[in-house]
Amino acid sequence: MADKSLDKGATGLDETPWGHRWGYRDTHFVINPDRTVRVAGNRYAVSGYDMPGFIPFVEEILDIKLDLNDIKQERTDKPVPAPIINQAFVEALAAELPAGRTSDDPRERLVHSHGQTTVDEIYQVLYTHLDRVVDLVVWPESHDEAATLVRLATEHDICLVPYGGGTSVSAALKLPANERRMIVSVDMRRMDAIEWIDRENMRASVQAGITGKHLEERLAAEGFTCGHEPDSVELSTLGGWIATNASGMKKNRYGNIEDVVENVTLVTPRGVIEHLMDMPRVSMGVEPRRLAFGSEGNLGLITRAVIRIHKLPEVKKYGSYVFPTFKAGTDFLYDLTRAGVLPASIRLMDNVQFRFGQALKGWPTAKEKLVSRLQQTVLVNIKGFDPHELAAATVVMEGSAAEVAYQEAQIKRIAGQHGGISGGAHNGQRGYMLTYAIAYIRDFLTDYHIIGETYETTAPWSRVHEIIAAVDARSREMHEAFGLPGKSYVSPRITQLYHSGVCIYFTHGFSTYGIEDPDRVFATIEHAMRETIMAHGGSISHHHGVGKLRRDFIPQTMTPAGVAWLREVKEAADPTNVFGIANNVFAPAAGSANGEEA
Amino acid sequence: MADKSLDKGATGLDETPWGHRWGYRDTHFVINPDRTVRVAGNRYAVSGYDMPGFIPFVEEILDIKLDLNDIKQERTDKPVPAPIINQAFVEALAAELPAGRTSDDPRERLVHSHGQTTVDEIYQVLYTHLDRVVDLVVWPESHDEAATLVRLATEHDICLVPYGGGTSVSAALKLPANERRMIVSVDMRRMDAIEWIDRENMRASVQAGITGKHLEERLAAEGFTCGHEPDSVELSTLGGWIATNASGMKKNRYGNIEDVVENVTLVTPRGVIEHLMDMPRVSMGVEPRRLAFGSEGNLGLITRAVIRIHKLPEVKKYGSYVFPTFKAGTDFLYDLTRAGVLPASIRLMDNVQFRFGQALKGWPTAKEKLVSRLQQTVLVNIKGFDPHELAAATVVMEGSAAEVAYQEAQIKRIAGQHGGISGGAHNGQRGYMLTYAIAYIRDFLTDYHIIGETYETTAPWSRVHEIIAAVDARSREMHEAFGLPGKSYVSPRITQLYHSGVCIYFTHGFSTYGIEDPDRVFATIEHAMRETIMAHGGSISHHHGVGKLRRDFIPQTMTPAGVAWLREVKEAADPTNVFGIANNVFAPAAGSANGEEA
Repeated sequence: MADKSLDKGATGLDETPWGHRWGYRDTHFVINPDRTVRVAGNRYAVSGYDMPGFIPFVEEILDIKLDLNDIKQERTDKPVPAPIINQAFVEALAAELPAGRTSDDPRERLVHSHGQTTVDEIYQVLYTHLDRVVDLVVWPESHDEAATLVRLATEHDICLVPYGGGTSVSAALKLPANERRMIVSVDMRRMDAIEWIDRENMRASVQAGITGKHLEERLAAEGFTCGHEPDSVELSTLGGWIATNASGMKKNRYGNIEDVVENVTLVTPRGVIEHLMDMPRVSMGVEPRRLAFGSEGNLGLITRAVIRIHKLPEVKKYGSYVFPTFKAGTDFLYDLTRAGVLPASIRLMDNVQFRFGQALKGWPTAKEKLVSRLQQTVLVNIKGFDPHELAAATVVMEGSAAEVAYQEAQIKRIAGQHGGISGGAHNGQRGYMLTYAIAYIRDFLTDYHIIGETYETTAPWSRVHEIIAAVDARSREMHEAFGLPGKSYVSPRITQLYHSGVCIYFTHGFSTYGIEDPDRVFATIEHAMRETIMAHGGSISHHHGVGKLRRDFIPQTMTPAGVAWLREVKEAADPTNVFGIANNVFAPAAGSANGEEA
Repeated sequence: MADKSLDKGATGLDETPWGHRWGYRDTHFVINPDRTVRVAGNRYAVSGYDMPGFIPFVEEILDIKLDLNDIKQERTDKPVPAPIINQAFVEALAAELPAGRTSDDPRERLVHSHGQTTVDEIYQVLYTHLDRVVDLVVWPESHDEAATLVRLATEHDICLVPYGGGTSVSAALKLPANERRMIVSVDMRRMDAIEWIDRENMRASVQAGITGKHLEERLAAEGFTCGHEPDSVELSTLGGWIATNASGMKKNRYGNIEDVVENVTLVTPRGVIEHLMDMPRVSMGVEPRRLAFGSEGNLGLITRAVIRIHKLPEVKKYGSYVFPTFKAGTDFLYDLTRAGVLPASIRLMDNVQFRFGQALKGWPTAKEKLVSRLQQTVLVNIKGFDPHELAAATVVMEGSAAEVAYQEAQIKRIAGQHGGISGGAHNGQRGYMLTYAIAYIRDFLTDYHIIGETYETTAPWSRVHEIIAAVDARSREMHEAFGLPGKSYVSPRITQLYHSGVCIYFTHGFSTYGIEDPDRVFATIEHAMRETIMAHGGSISHHHGVGKLRRDFIPQTMTPAGVAWLREVKEAADPTNVFGIANNVFAPAAGSANGEEA
C-alpha cells in the first residue's frame, strides 16, 4: 500500500499468504491469557497491541459466552483427489511454454480451487472437503503465453479457470462438481508488469495479474496512483476487478473499475478482443471491451488493461463526523451528494459497527482516557446523543490544498445541518483501518464457532432504511427459526454514494455453537437476506458479483431475452465452453444442487 | 429549451421543421440588399438583427467573392419511387395498430429517408435524388405498439429503420440501396411522455422518442433538468442519443449519455432486453443494457429509458477567457482538468471560430463600439495578443452558489497562469449561442455553392496539436489537388475534456463554385481527414458515431475477433436482420460502392 497511514510499512514484509484463509501469514488474531486480543505481526495499524474490549464486545453483541478452549478444529489432512490428466494437452503445454510454468502439487491445486466465500468455499476447505479440485495450475508470464494456453486448451478440450487474488466472495471460483474435463487454474499473478506509463495523458498499460498492492506501490514510486481501492486491494488483481465489476472506496475521485479502465485485452477461444486505440471516450458502436466487465471468468482471460492514473494527491486528509442517528447520517450523505462535493471516500457506519471500532482500541493512555471522557460528555450529556443510537461517518479527502479545503468546509457545513459533530481525523483514519481487519476477524472467530460473511447491495436512496430494517427483521426471524444461540450480528454501513442511491454493505454473523451444518444454515439465511433485499428494492450485487452465490436471483435482474442474449454472447466467444467456470447466467438453473450443471 | 438565455422563447413557437434542411421553418438566414445578413424569425438570440460582418468574413476566410445572385438551385420535383408493399404486413399492421399510425405520403417517406450528413444525404435530397426511399412511415404511440410493430415486421420479413430526430451526421439513416424488402421508418417522436418522475432518487422514466427540447421543457416545469445537451438537443431524441453514444456539452456536470441513462428498454426481434431494476450501479455480470449504447439502429427499437435528473441549478453563470494562442488555451484546459474543477461546460475556440463569432454581431451601439475598442486596446496594445492568434474559451458554470463561486475562482486563477484574460459573461453566452446557428449556416451557405460539414474525434492530450496541424496540412493539400477555388475553412474547437484527452470538433468548408460533383469531392476530402486524424492518434468518432460514413475505419478500432463478436451479438438479437439499416460493422466491407451490401 502506498498509503502508509493504513499500513504500517508492508513494503518489505513477507507476503506469504495463508493460502486457504484470508491474507498474509504474518497477520492473525490471538487471545492473550487475560482475554485481551492482539493482532500478531507488524503489518497493519491495528497490529501489535492488546485490545481489552474485543472479547467483551463480541460476547455482548452476539449475546453469548465465548469458551476460549473450545476451538473448531480445522481439518489437517485435507483431501485432494487424483488429478484428471489430459496427456496430450500436458505434453503440448510442455512443448510450447517455458519450464517452470506449471504445478500439480496437491496443495497448490487445493489453494487454487476456492475463493473466500465463507459457506461455499472456506468452510468446506477448512472443515470438510472440496467437491472438485483443479487438476493443474499454470502461471503464464506474458500475453503470448496466456494466448498459447487458451489456444491449447481450446484444441484439447480443457476447462480453464482464470485466477487472480482468490478473493471472490460470490463462489465464483467454486468449481462445477461435475466437470469431467481436465480443469486448469490460470494463476495470473506473474503477469504483474506495468508495461508503460504515459505521463502526459496519465494512463498506464498494466498486465492484469498485478495485485492492487503492487500496482499502487509501483505507481507511487513514479509519483502516481490508480486510486482503485476495493477492500481486497492488497490481494485482488486488476483482471479480477474487471471480471467482477469492482468498486473502490475512493470511487468518487478515481471512479469505479469501469471508469478506471480505458482498454482491456480479453483472450477468448475465438481470438483476442480489444480496442486498437486507447481512448477516454469514443462512439464506435457497441464496445467489445464491455464484454470483459463482469465476465466473471466465463468468457476469456483478461491479460492486460490500460488504466487511468493520477498524480499522487498534494493533500490527503481524514475526517470523521458523529451523528445522533443512522438516519441523520444518511440524510447528511444525501445532501452532500446533491451539493456535488463528494470527497474521495465517505462512509457511514451504524451504531454497532461504530462500537466495534471502539472495541478494537488498545488500553487507553491517561490522556486518551481524558479525551474519551470529554468526548462522551459532549456527545451524551451536552448534545444528548444516545450512545446506542449514534452513527459515524468517516471521510477521506484527496486533492489540491484548495480542493480539500473546499470539500472540508462544505462537508462540515452540511454535517452541521444534520446534527453532525466532528470526531477528528484520527477516528476517521481508524474507520478505514478496520476495513483491512474484517476478513481476518472472520477467520479468527470461525475458530470459536462464529460464522460470518459480508454482502452488499445497491439501494435507491428512498429504500435504504426500508432495506436495512427488513434485513434486520428477517435475520431475527431466521435466527429464531433455526434456534441459533444468542443473537445475530447484522450491521450495515453505507460505503458508496451515487446520484440515485448508495451501496449498503452488511456484515452478518452469529454463533453456531451446537448447530449442525452451520454453513448450510448460514447459506440458507444469506439466501433469505438477498431475497429480502431485492424484495425491498435492492440490487443483486453492488460490486461482489453474481458468481454462483446469487445465481438464483438472475430472473429478477433482467428479462429472459437478456439472459438468452448473454448466453449467445458466450457462445460467440467461447463455443466449446473452455471457460467453463459456470458463473452467473452460465450457472445451472435455480434449484439444482451443488452448483452442478443440469 | 429551458435555458432562455440560449433561446429567446421557443416555447409556443411553431415547431414545423424544414424537413430536408436543418431545424425549424421559422429560422433561416437571409441576405439584405446592403449585403448584411439577418436570421429570420424570433427563435434564437442570434435572430432578428442585421449582421454587417458576416459576408465579409466568409469572403475573407474562404478567399472568394460571393456572387449573391448565383443561387444553387434546389430540385423542386423531388423524385420518390413507388413503394415496395408487403401487403400481408400492411394488413396485419392495420388490424393490430389503431388508425392514424402510418403514412405512405411521398413527402413523409422522403423526409424519413435521410439524416443530416451533408454529402451522403442532404446534397442528394436537395440537388439530385435518394437511391432508396422508405416505403412506409409508422408512428407507434406506446411501448406495446412498438413491440407489436417489431413482431409483425419479424413475421413478415420487413426492414425496420428507427427514426428519432433525423439529425444523424454519420449517414446512419442512409438506406441500403439494394434493400429489396419493404422498408418501414419507425418515427418514435409520438412516444414522448415522461412516464414517471422519482423525486427523491432523482430519476425519470421517459419514452425514447422525446426530443431534448421537450424533455427539458417538461422537466423544467417540475423543477428538474436532465442536463444532456448535444448540439442537436432541440431536435434529437433520447433514443437517438443512446443509439449513437451521444455526448452533451455539459457532460462534466451531467455526464455523457451512458452516465445519464440507468436503464434502457430495447425491443429486438428476439424479445425485450432490459434490466428489471433501475440502479445507479450494479455488478450483475455483463450488462445487457450495454447492447443499446451505440446500437445505431442495428439491433432493435429503443422505446424507453430511465434517466438521471437534477434539480434546476441554483446558479447558472457564463464566462469567457481570451488566451494569446490556442496552445495556451489548451494548456489551461489541461491544468483545469488536473485540478479537478471542471465547470458544467468549457470549450476552446480557435482564432478563426472566435472571429466568426465576432462576425455574427450586429451593428454596434456607440457604447459597444467604445467597449470593443477598449477591449482591443487591452488585448492587442497592452497584453500584446496577436488578433490572428488569440483563442477564446467559453464557460458554463452550474450548481449551488458555493460551487459556482469555487469553480469561478479556480478557473480564473488557472486561466491567469496561462495568460488568459476574462472576456466577460456575455461573450461566453454568445459562444454557446453559436452552437445552434452552425447547421443553419451550412444550409444557408449551400445556396451559395459553399459546402460544409462538422466532424469530431477523441484525442489524447498529447496529440491535440499534432492532429490539428495534420488536418490543416492535409486539407490544404487536398484543396490544391482538387483545384478548389479560394481556401478551405478548417476550424477546430475543443468541446469536451477528459482525464486522458479531449474531443476536438472540426468545422470544414469551402466554395465549390465551378466544381463538378462537389459532394463527391467533399466526401473524398472528409475521408482523407479521418484517415489523417486516426493516423495521428485520434479516434474514429467521439460522439457522432460510425454509421456508414466511417465504416472504412473499423479495422483500426478493434480486433477482428471484436468485429466477429459484434456480428454474432447482432445475429443473436436479430437473426433475420429486421433492423437492416447496415451501420457500423453491419455495413458492407470497405471499398464496396454506395453503402450497398456485398
